[in-house]
Amino acid sequence: MDADAVAKAFVEHYYRTFDTNRPALVSLYQDGSMLTFEGQQFLGPAAIAGKLSSLPFAQCHHDINTVDCQPSGPSGGMLVFVSGSLRTGPEDHPLKFSQMFQLLQGGGNFYVQNDMFRLNYG
Amino acid sequence: MDADAVAKAFVEHYYRTFDTNRPALVSLYQDGSMLTFEGQQFLGPAAIAGKLSSLPFAQCHHDINTVDCQPSGPSGGMLVFVSGSLRTGPEDHPLKFSQMFQLLQGGGNFYVQNDMFRLNYG
Repeated sequence: MDADAVAKAFVEHYYRTFDTNRPALVSLYQDGSMLTFEGQQFLGPAAIAGKLSSLPFAQCHHDINTVDCQPSGPSGGMLVFVSGSLRTGPEDHPLKFSQMFQLLQGGGNFYVQNDMFRLNYG
Repeated sequence: MDADAVAKAFVEHYYRTFDTNRPALVSLYQDGSMLTFEGQQFLGPAAIAGKLSSLPFAQCHHDINTVDCQPSGPSGGMLVFVSGSLRTGPEDHPLKFSQMFQLLQGGGNFYVQNDMFRLNYG
């Protein structure tokens, strides 16, 4: 497995889904998955998807600056660390963000076990 | 164990050590530990401490904005996600950064299994 390629493919898929079909993100999480969004914790796919769907903007566009990854342990998991910027409207100022994921393998696919998101206020 | 308290204590210890006695950071890493610093990978305490010691500034001061943490798996590990800013001289412009750690337990103490650092250019 080329971990960097898997990480990049995951990141492209994640943010494309976020920007075009946010409710579909629910399929990337499993029962024990956790999201910390701007310091607020959400556990499990329903709570996580509920938070993401409730964000107060209809459109969003992410631009990715950097993607780093490391193996997270002997079980074949991966840590993925992303920096970039996002805009929630065509004329809005871009906001910088950082986000990290732990991806684990289940049923032949990766799912998101851990997800932490922060805006980087300038 | 209060995970948030452990994460905050680790973060305070890590950056205080970085800012006052950088070579001592070596004791926080073990043989399988990995650092990705601005996209460059370093494996093991000697390579990691070598990189941190070779950074081209004599003094550094970190200010921490946010610390988030989540359990990383059944083995009692923790993911710690930090944002903040740093200055490498009293009159230098602060640089924003993000950093994530996976802490694992070994011999009664936590050590850093994974460490990824990025400056967030503004």
